[in-house]
Parts: sequence; structure tokens; C-alpha cells
Amino acid sequence: MSTKLSNPQDKILASAEIMFASKRFHEVRMEDIAISAGVGKGTIYRYFKDKEELYAALLKDASKELMNLIEKAVKFEVSCKNKLIVILQTSINLFDAKPHLFDLILHAEAFQNTLVEFPWQQTRWNVIQLVESVFQQAEEQKEFSIQNPKESALLLLGGLRAIIRFGHKPRQKELCNEIVHHFLNGFSKSLPSAN
Amino acid sequence: MSTKLSNPQDKILASAEIMFASKRFHEVRMEDIAISAGVGKGTIYRYFKDKEELYAALLKDASKELMNLIEKAVKFEVSCKNKLIVILQTSINLFDAKPHLFDLILHAEAFQNTLVEFPWQQTRWNVIQLVESVFQQAEEQKEFSIQNPKESALLLLGGLRAIIRFGHKPRQKELCNEIVHHFLNGFSKSLPSAN
Repeated sequence: MSTKLSNPQDKILASAEIMFASKRFHEVRMEDIAISAGVGKGTIYRYFKDKEELYAALLKDASKELMNLIEKAVKFEVSCKNKLIVILQTSINLFDAKPHLFDLILHAEAFQNTLVEFPWQQTRWNVIQLVESVFQQAEEQKEFSIQNPKESALLLLGGLRAIIRFGHKPRQKELCNEIVHHFLNGFSKSLPSAN
Repeated sequence: MSTKLSNPQDKILASAEIMFASKRFHEVRMEDIAISAGVGKGTIYRYFKDKEELYAALLKDASKELMNLIEKAVKFEVSCKNKLIVILQTSINLFDAKPHLFDLILHAEAFQNTLVEFPWQQTRWNVIQLVESVFQQAEEQKEFSIQNPKESALLLLGGLRAIIRFGHKPRQKELCNEIVHHFLNGFSKSLPSAN
């Protein structure tokens, strides 16, 4: 990271990430980002046309990082249950390590023109598709069977979002394990009188 | 609704709701809301000090409506499983009937100063608490038993959010029934070789 930050573009992105997360979009000025990054006002415009472009670049970076980490983690797992666990774990780890990222997404989405897809949307679809493909693989290797893959993936990942955002911290060690276990087998423990 | 809208305050709120949902916050002018509501510029300021106050009022109205509808629906159900189903169904119905509401929440949250709780947050906690209290009641009447009520409520409601936002429309008739069924009993159908 420190070697990367000798690059002006990365310095700008690092400063912008912090400023965008703590201020309203229209309160952040390109000049302030330049000052905080220790680069000249001319330099910042050489890399980014305007704030929208900076924002999009930040989210693109984070998105690439998340997908790389997830794909790497999934590759090492044999069972589909474990694949789901590491998808969840990798996402929680990244968001916990980058507490600004959630706000950044929220801001980007709210500021976005409703007609244009905002920069994080593709990442969402990618993760949803990955989860669906794990479901399909589980079916093929007869590990487990999910009736409505699309809807179930939405429910699992929407639930994950709520945990990332509002869940207890520090995270319990077995959190992702338990979420996936309960997702597959039910959140209700069987009671003798349950029907 | 039509009798309600003879009131200038309600006319202003109805116009503001549509404008805030389709434009960026700083692009919406109080004057334009006044024109669209058919009231004078002075009138709008008699009711709302500024845009923030208007926004907060809109979300407070929607929040009150959602909680009223949910509480009414829950009261008529005996089984806790059905209580969960109607909580989900009522939420989906309201958001589907008010397609602007989701954007409004998203905008309000993004524009909010991070130190102040934004107007929809209390509604979130209220619904989470209601779901937790249904879990507790289910335990008491030995209907089903949820191990981690707080975390499970977050997962169920986070999943619901994803379905409201990205789920297939028109909604399947049995959608909420199926979500709750799978939430309680697992999204995986048992396979003979499953372990």
C-alpha cells in the first residue's frame, strides 16, 4: 500500500475516500482533496475530470478488490457450504476494514442519476451471480438443493448487508458459519410441538 | 386521500415526495415544490422551515403509515409464523405502492449528517424489535425457537429489503409465505446425500 501511494493518483484516491465519506458530496471540493493528498490543483484534474469521476474510480477500485478477494477465497474451498461461508466472511472483512466504503456506496447511489446504473451495481450483480452459481454447483454435486436460487441469493446477501451494517461488533468468530448453517437448515430449532 | 389533499400541508408533502425522489436534493427548490403544490412561496415556509424539515416530515409520515399497517395486520394473526408473513407482506405492499419511498430513504440517509440519526432509522429499529418480539412469543407458545433473535431478525429484514429492491415483479402470490417458510426451515431442500 505504501509503495502504491507514491503514485499521485492513489494519493488522490486515498484522500478522496476519506473526504467523501465524512462530508456531503457538494461540500467536498476538488481543491481540498488536492491539498489533503499533497498534490497541486492542476494535478488532480489531470487524473480526474470532476468529482463524479473520482467517486466512480473509488468505487471501481473497491469493487475490484472485493471481487478479487472473494474469487480467491472461493477457489480454495471444496464444499459449496464453505464457499458460501467465505463469500460472506470476505465481504464482512472488507467492509469492516474499510468503514468508509458503506457510506461511499450509499452516497454514490443517492447522488446517482436514476437513469444511469451507479458504479457499485455491477458488483452487486456479480456477487449475486456467484452465489447463484455456488447453489447450482451444490445441486450438481448433490450437496444441497436451493429451490429459488435468485430469490434465495437476494435474501442471503440482503441479510448479509444488514449484518455488515447493523450487526454486533466485534463479530462473533463463528458468525458466517452460523449464518450459512441457518440459511440452509432453518433459523428455527425444531421444537417437539413444532409442526 | 383526496380529502386529505385539500390541506396545503398535505399538498406540499405530496409534491415534495415526487420531486425529491426524482431529483438530487440540492436541485430541488422550495419554490418549485410550492408551484407544483399550487401554493404560494410564503405558504410553504409557513409549514416547513427548510428542505431538511420537509424531508423529515415526508419520512415521518411514511414511517407512521408503515408501522400502523404492520401493527394492524399483526394483531389479526394468531400464529407467529403468520405474524412474520404479514410483516413482510405489509412492507412489500407499501414499498410497491410508493415506489418513491425507497429512493427517499436512500437520499435522506446519504444526505444526513453522520452524527444525527436519520429519520427512517427509528422505523428500522421498530420493525426489528417487532420481529424479535414475535420470535419471543413463538418461543413462549412453543411454536418455534430462534437461537439468535437479534441477528436472525436482521437477516430476515435485510433479506426482505433486497427482495423489495431487486426482487422479481410482479410479486409471486406466495412470496412472503415461502420466505418465512424457508427462513424457519431452511432454504435447502434435504437431499438424500446431504449431511
